[in-house]
Amino acid sequence: MSSDVEPFRAIGLSQLARQLRQEGRDVIQMEFGQPSAGAPTLAVDAAKSALEATLPGYWQSEDLKDRLAALYRDEHGVSVDPSRIFLTCGASPALVLALTCAFKPGDRIAMARPGYVAYRNTLKGLFLEPVEIRTGAETRFQLTAEMIAALQPAPQGVIIASPSNPTGAIIPPGDFAEIASVCERRGIRIISDEIYHQLTYGTPTVSALRYAPDAFVINSFSKYYCMPGWRVGWMVAPEDKQVAAASRIGNFFLTSPSLSQVAALAALDAKEELDGHLTLYAHNRDIMLERLPRLGLSEMAPPDGAFYIYANVGRYTDDSLAFCEHILRETGVVLAPGVDHDPDLGRSHVRFCFAMETGRINAALDRLETVLKP
Amino acid sequence: MSSDVEPFRAIGLSQLARQLRQEGRDVIQMEFGQPSAGAPTLAVDAAKSALEATLPGYWQSEDLKDRLAALYRDEHGVSVDPSRIFLTCGASPALVLALTCAFKPGDRIAMARPGYVAYRNTLKGLFLEPVEIRTGAETRFQLTAEMIAALQPAPQGVIIASPSNPTGAIIPPGDFAEIASVCERRGIRIISDEIYHQLTYGTPTVSALRYAPDAFVINSFSKYYCMPGWRVGWMVAPEDKQVAAASRIGNFFLTSPSLSQVAALAALDAKEELDGHLTLYAHNRDIMLERLPRLGLSEMAPPDGAFYIYANVGRYTDDSLAFCEHILRETGVVLAPGVDHDPDLGRSHVRFCFAMETGRINAALDRLETVLKP
Repeated sequence: MSSDVEPFRAIGLSQLARQLRQEGRDVIQMEFGQPSAGAPTLAVDAAKSALEATLPGYWQSEDLKDRLAALYRDEHGVSVDPSRIFLTCGASPALVLALTCAFKPGDRIAMARPGYVAYRNTLKGLFLEPVEIRTGAETRFQLTAEMIAALQPAPQGVIIASPSNPTGAIIPPGDFAEIASVCERRGIRIISDEIYHQLTYGTPTVSALRYAPDAFVINSFSKYYCMPGWRVGWMVAPEDKQVAAASRIGNFFLTSPSLSQVAALAALDAKEELDGHLTLYAHNRDIMLERLPRLGLSEMAPPDGAFYIYANVGRYTDDSLAFCEHILRETGVVLAPGVDHDPDLGRSHVRFCFAMETGRINAALDRLETVLKP
Repeated sequence: MSSDVEPFRAIGLSQLARQLRQEGRDVIQMEFGQPSAGAPTLAVDAAKSALEATLPGYWQSEDLKDRLAALYRDEHGVSVDPSRIFLTCGASPALVLALTCAFKPGDRIAMARPGYVAYRNTLKGLFLEPVEIRTGAETRFQLTAEMIAALQPAPQGVIIASPSNPTGAIIPPGDFAEIASVCERRGIRIISDEIYHQLTYGTPTVSALRYAPDAFVINSFSKYYCMPGWRVGWMVAPEDKQVAAASRIGNFFLTSPSLSQVAALAALDAKEELDGHLTLYAHNRDIMLERLPRLGLSEMAPPDGAFYIYANVGRYTDDSLAFCEHILRETGVVLAPGVDHDPDLGRSHVRFCFAMETGRINAALDRLETVLKP
């Protein structure tokens, strides 16, 4: 058990990018999972109206919780009492909340490698032990029931991410049911990160709650809803951990921003605008899938959902951080180094975010063509 | 070592208050440390302007960090590099950040009893051990160097709160220097919660950084700046923990709300409006100090700062939670039960928040007169 928490390396690249921009360079930022579009108009308008009155202080929007509960009923066919929904300042503290509700120091938590950097680091920071399971193309870079069944001893928990960051790969419903089944049998608590739900390109996504009613679910308004800077996320607590969650959130975090909760509630009605972004992402994805192979980058994880492509750049480098810094300095394009997602094989991978205007995608690819010669 | 985290009991009372309000009752909320005034006009105007453009997503305002660093220089005469300032979604996650940077499970952290409920509960939730030190009128309900020197074995850390919640008591500069000295000698890390700084009624407050350069300092825009619902706080990391803090914040929390950072920056220029609130609080405090003794509540901690009075209600009850619920149902006035701040002697104490219009203070006292007959 170690408490060494590594930095989020993409943040360092982003700081270099800022410096280059201050020097007058045109920088195309593909390193963060951050849509270039702002919050939906309905959300911004709701925020403007709310600013005309005095906002509540420490406050939780019961209306927002009710609407989120309705989403689980309507989209996933599962019943979630609104009192099980805890509003947080984004998905990150929701993960901290879930982990501290469910586990104690030294507990072992399984997760896929490659995976979101903060899983590993947050676990370590809370003195939990990440049990990273190597995944590859043969299982679509996702965990399987077999992998979880084979862990000896059984871990106390497992983090599931579908669509995955960095790959975008989605776990098919049947596989999800099998994972839930083996976790129930072995007493492994599921933490399901569903932050990329609604961002799919034809493949359906399911909530863990459909198969594992005692899972913790994490989600936020930062991705599909284009509101990362507003800091609204939520956690669904399983019934047996509802009291633990209520106690912890009041002490650890208090509330999500009042204005952001008002805006988020309005964003739930902005499906037309948001699905427009999704259409744009789908178009960008097609362009990337067509043009990346011409740069020698044809080996990639299945980009079923999210807005990422996780590509093998092993023909160019075995040090993705240095590679990304080189690309940034040469072209002004910022990529996320795979070492954030996978400390070993990530040395030969990078992640592209394509949640931006198509013109910028093409410009980035044009620039990459000048330095990547397969 | 226990992980039992108790609920924040004032939150339960607040839920009852909401229910009564929905039934048409006029409720006067004195249970939370939440100014009734909204954010300063300059802050709201800055937010409105910012909403006209697309806001940054995951973003930290370097301007805000620079200004906060300047405050430490100008107000406290201490040099803090802006890179040591970490912006958080309020002081609560800043405390989580500090505790996880500085300590490991099982570490013992000293604190005054009575004290802010979240200290004890957050420590327990992170598997740290609170070492509560009984304080009373003889030390103005504050820790002293002698108390810390007497702890065997030395704890790994100590939480200092001046002005204190719930008492408002301020540690005199000389005493603070002695505390810092004994902590340095014994290797005890100071976490200084300075959230009630600037809210004083004649008594000066000092930053821990003046005497203990390796202290963690926590602060926020929720109290003096009247912006609790905006969720902007900060932590000053000591130099030896700056890397640890940077790693943890990027994984645990990411950023504070973008719009709120813009508003907070503007709030720093709203001293005139905010000091107007302080004048109001001072007036309210005078009224409370005059009228509470007539209700039989003459024994109270020294209300040097913050916007609280922590009074002994032992002549009426030894169950402050039931007492507060009774008062609420009878009068519509919500008080904070002392059991949040002190599980034993708090049974005979309540905390009043007086950060509201004077008319409401008088109305609350009028109503209390109908039920409290000394």
